[in-house]
Amino acid sequence: MKAQKTAAIILAAGHGTRMKSALPKVMHEIGGRAMIAHVMDAAAALSPDRMAVVIGDHAPEVGAFAQSIQKDATVAVQSPPQGTGHAVLQALPSLEGFSGAAIILYADTPLVTPATLRALARQIEKGAAVAVLGFRPDDPGAYGRLKLDDKGALSAIVEAKDANEEELEITLCNSGVMAIDAAFLQKRLKDIGNKNAKKEYYLTDIVALARKDRKSCAVIEASAEEVLGVNSRVELAEAEAVFQDRMRKAAMENGTTLADPSTVYFSWDTKTGKDVVIGQNVVFGPGVTISDGAEIKPFSHLEGASVAARASAGPFARLRPGADLKSGAKVGNFVEIKKAIIGDGAKVSHLTYLGDAEVGAEANIGAGTITCNYDGYNKHKTKIGKGAFIGSNSSLVAPVTIGDGAYVGSGSVVTKDVAPGDLAVARGRQTAIKGWAARFHENNKDKKK
Amino acid sequence: MKAQKTAAIILAAGHGTRMKSALPKVMHEIGGRAMIAHVMDAAAALSPDRMAVVIGDHAPEVGAFAQSIQKDATVAVQSPPQGTGHAVLQALPSLEGFSGAAIILYADTPLVTPATLRALARQIEKGAAVAVLGFRPDDPGAYGRLKLDDKGALSAIVEAKDANEEELEITLCNSGVMAIDAAFLQKRLKDIGNKNAKKEYYLTDIVALARKDRKSCAVIEASAEEVLGVNSRVELAEAEAVFQDRMRKAAMENGTTLADPSTVYFSWDTKTGKDVVIGQNVVFGPGVTISDGAEIKPFSHLEGASVAARASAGPFARLRPGADLKSGAKVGNFVEIKKAIIGDGAKVSHLTYLGDAEVGAEANIGAGTITCNYDGYNKHKTKIGKGAFIGSNSSLVAPVTIGDGAYVGSGSVVTKDVAPGDLAVARGRQTAIKGWAARFHENNKDKKK
Amino acid sequence: MKAQKTAAIILAAGHGTRMKSALPKVMHEIGGRAMIAHVMDAAAALSPDRMAVVIGDHAPEVGAFAQSIQKDATVAVQSPPQGTGHAVLQALPSLEGFSGAAIILYADTPLVTPATLRALARQIEKGAAVAVLGFRPDDPGAYGRLKLDDKGALSAIVEAKDANEEELEITLCNSGVMAIDAAFLQKRLKDIGNKNAKKEYYLTDIVALARKDRKSCAVIEASAEEVLGVNSRVELAEAEAVFQDRMRKAAMENGTTLADPSTVYFSWDTKTGKDVVIGQNVVFGPGVTISDGAEIKPFSHLEGASVAARASAGPFARLRPGADLKSGAKVGNFVEIKKAIIGDGAKVSHLTYLGDAEVGAEANIGAGTITCNYDGYNKHKTKIGKGAFIGSNSSLVAPVTIGDGAYVGSGSVVTKDVAPGDLAVARGRQTAIKGWAARFHENNKDKKK
Repeated sequence: MKAQKTAAIILAAGHGTRMKSALPKVMHEIGGRAMIAHVMDAAAALSPDRMAVVIGDHAPEVGAFAQSIQKDATVAVQSPPQGTGHAVLQALPSLEGFSGAAIILYADTPLVTPATLRALARQIEKGAAVAVLGFRPDDPGAYGRLKLDDKGALSAIVEAKDANEEELEITLCNSGVMAIDAAFLQKRLKDIGNKNAKKEYYLTDIVALARKDRKSCAVIEASAEEVLGVNSRVELAEAEAVFQDRMRKAAMENGTTLADPSTVYFSWDTKTGKDVVIGQNVVFGPGVTISDGAEIKPFSHLEGASVAARASAGPFARLRPGADLKSGAKVGNFVEIKKAIIGDGAKVSHLTYLGDAEVGAEANIGAGTITCNYDGYNKHKTKIGKGAFIGSNSSLVAPVTIGDGAYVGSGSVVTKDVAPGDLAVARGRQTAIKGWAARFHENNKDKKK
Repeated sequence: MKAQKTAAIILAAGHGTRMKSALPKVMHEIGGRAMIAHVMDAAAALSPDRMAVVIGDHAPEVGAFAQSIQKDATVAVQSPPQGTGHAVLQALPSLEGFSGAAIILYADTPLVTPATLRALARQIEKGAAVAVLGFRPDDPGAYGRLKLDDKGALSAIVEAKDANEEELEITLCNSGVMAIDAAFLQKRLKDIGNKNAKKEYYLTDIVALARKDRKSCAVIEASAEEVLGVNSRVELAEAEAVFQDRMRKAAMENGTTLADPSTVYFSWDTKTGKDVVIGQNVVFGPGVTISDGAEIKPFSHLEGASVAARASAGPFARLRPGADLKSGAKVGNFVEIKKAIIGDGAKVSHLTYLGDAEVGAEANIGAGTITCNYDGYNKHKTKIGKGAFIGSNSSLVAPVTIGDGAYVGSGSVVTKDVAPGDLAVARGRQTAIKGWAARFHENNKDKKK
Repeated sequence: MKAQKTAAIILAAGHGTRMKSALPKVMHEIGGRAMIAHVMDAAAALSPDRMAVVIGDHAPEVGAFAQSIQKDATVAVQSPPQGTGHAVLQALPSLEGFSGAAIILYADTPLVTPATLRALARQIEKGAAVAVLGFRPDDPGAYGRLKLDDKGALSAIVEAKDANEEELEITLCNSGVMAIDAAFLQKRLKDIGNKNAKKEYYLTDIVALARKDRKSCAVIEASAEEVLGVNSRVELAEAEAVFQDRMRKAAMENGTTLADPSTVYFSWDTKTGKDVVIGQNVVFGPGVTISDGAEIKPFSHLEGASVAARASAGPFARLRPGADLKSGAKVGNFVEIKKAIIGDGAKVSHLTYLGDAEVGAEANIGAGTITCNYDGYNKHKTKIGKGAFIGSNSSLVAPVTIGDGAYVGSGSVVTKDVAPGDLAVARGRQTAIKGWAARFHENNKDKKK
């Protein structure tokens, strides 16, 4: 099927005062990605010919961010805000010469899916001038109602305040998202007026203009969840919950076991394979891939990490960016891994920090091992050879190399390289003071221990 | 608005056998605070002239605890328990000379709000002899029904077992909470009888007495959640859930982002500022303040801690009482801070314990650093200067001072002060035994590594 | 009451392709125990005379596993699968000589309770030829409907595709679980035909055969939750949730406080006593016992561990198999205990690993202590005496014994035994290099620290 030609206009100029935030509303994140980026991703899935983002002059960083997501996106500034019709008007120059379906999206409505956008565009291809995305909220309340004719085509959008009793009983409401035939939009958008209480130009009026021109309008229906708009942190949390449920269901359907799905938090780009088992309370930051048969145990936090087949991490593991667990490697409790390769079958079982390191296959890193990788200014590298054994509570002062099959005695502070097959010991000599403790306890016996 | 005069009588004498606990029921906690304290707090918000607590003789500690919350509270003992009317009778002497609204509360009904109590008291001020708090449970079942007259005034409380079919269909039920005109209460409480199956004196009979005296009675309605009574641990968990939802919503409305609200647990006194971001799975014990722009990452546990603007903690951070993170300070994973000031911009990133310590601004505390603050009997203090660098896996044996800009080599055990700008190293010398590890591996080759 | 004679036939031959798993479906776990084991446990609670498990030839390991749970269970192989009637036929030889109620169970329906099975068996004892377990799903959809006669007896099971409009309105559906009089089953099972679209033998046809023989059939009703069948990982998660809710409620009713029940994960065999307090986010693997008055603080993970009266663990504690906390012992944050006894009142407060160890009563183990119990091939034991004090950040290189009341200086690497009452110190000497740090900072001043 040849895809119809599409353009996307994303409205991102709102102030979002109810967020009570210094961060622009559309930059707040869902699944570790700014809301506006989710909307741009959904639009990008249609390979649109043009993408325009309309921002407010109070938040120029939104424009820069949008272009970091889609470098071809054009940015238009709406100043001051005078309604959605006025916002789209600012983006119109960027559609010059384009014909097809212009899809109007909202950067604070982050859960709209590509399938829905394709369905809207298809209506334009089939001849509609406008295709509006409708939904059925629990309480239609103040939403505009979508009035259909006998054939199911859209005859009008009736604002709640203008609706008669019969119209108020309509449950299908206007989400604001719509596709508009680009030629029609170019011709008629300027005719939307602002004779209303707020003196704003409402894009919804485009439907009445189309009907006046005897053009057909269509409706596509989405779930209320899909068009959830975010205006407060409570709604942000609701959108996050919907997003997480989508991700969890997809992971399970792909063959990943989630011990308690409601406690596993995915990022937008998390990848998990077949027969992966994920315990309770696992948080994935961006950039994580978990391969087939791997296990992530409870209370783990991963970001920018790769876990190969049959490897495992946790409980209480933190894998930071650059953590790269090879096949069958094991990372245990209270262990942090950062920019470090853990070789096939190697074990890092407890209370360890490995940063800027390479650990060879089948090496064993004892409890309490610390790579001293930072001197306050520079980071240095630690290399640990295949089959090496690092005794517990050792400090490896980087840059340093521990050879294949070498052995570091427990509690050592290793500052010099250890040759393959050698034993290195670097610790103080043990001395005893006879009876000191007995005297100390005696002297303190009146104090509560 | 001048507040009406109020007195509070809090009934806390129940045995709570369904809790199966050695702890008195009303001492079980919601949001880290005993249920009875929540009820006393709600009453205290009205600045009452008198507060009386009625306890049972099986749990005298409840009285002492109540007076630790409100030192002016009087404590009356009900022994043996003979119903709510009898319980209030024990508190009557403490209302001697008081005129106004006497509010009757239950220490096992911890979610009643000051706004509701004010509304009840206002009814007394307006002339009602009794104002009863009603609610509409999912299943009215055995609750007493509130029968209203044409004007919406309370005409009677009808016990379920005495109700006719029509009365049973009433959905508005008696919560037990009420306000009573003090003069009327003093005069008529003694007239409540105990001619019933259990031979108990029921406070609800006060309504019939008021009606007999041709006095008006009023009803205020609350949500079923607000009057949830706790008789079992299942109900305790339900009340905790309602309390947490209130706290979460308030935090979000105040400008705090909660990644998953259902996984953040507040204490009754937790304070969070604007643009604070709180990750999944964070538990706040009592006494925590989080300032604007700070971030608490997932899997963190805080109590008695202060986190200043733009500081961050977690994931996997534990801040114990006296943890004081100054502006921009960072506390990372598997780090415990107790009675310690972490200066502006200082970093304590991994696997560290700092107790009884002061860390200067911009200091860097390496992974695995431990303050050895306890000798079995006494706690000693560690001071770390501004811009100091503590190498990883160091032990700081308190009392000890590390000067400004000083440097401690990795793996050192520091027992003596380090002067500003100096480097201190305190560790063993590294020696190597050629080929030892190779021989060791060879000798053990038959064993599974 | 004398229990009726029962036999159990457990069908476990399905392929479970929707699980997308290399593990046989019935081996996926609920509460840390394979689904088939849950079903076998429920059957075993009736002390059945016979237990037969029908497996597929693609997963012989299921038979071996079943016999590891019940060594007397017989295993029959169904190959190829030709329907439930055919599956039961394979198990029939193992019922030779048995008379009583044969209960047919499904290994992927893990939540059926012994009480329900007893109720089914009782119907056979009372004279029914077949007793079917019915339930009322939210959407009866494609489920077979249970048609009752005037007396409430089962007259027919009508498949949805064969049902008329009236029958489709029946809400009571067939769960598949049933009890059948063994003599009747032996006589008539072979008469079930396979003249249907899939050419399969359906066990449900046994009802029609019974009715043809003028035998009575009965229905027992269960909740939809109890007969939840698991065919996908989404359903596995649903079953896990139901199981957890059962465990949580039972724990609370037994006198255990759960701060947020929805975040505490039990294993099938977890035991918790009275006045136990369990914080948010606690995961119990198999084999854990928590005694009266003990506390498990948030973010803890326990498996194979015993926590005695008034002992506490967490937050952020990991107790692994063999962790044995005696009365009043305390294990704190970022501590891992494995195969170790922690004596009465002993404290292990922070950042510690104790493996293969014994800690005497009232001993104090400082922060960052590590038992170096593994040399790459063998595990060695550490013994710490009563009242001993292990200074922070010490390494105890096993095998090693620290005597009663002995003292280990902070940061020591202890390789030799310490006698009772002695002080042992084993660390490097502290040296200072004047001004080194100042020069280092100066040399690096252009780099961002």
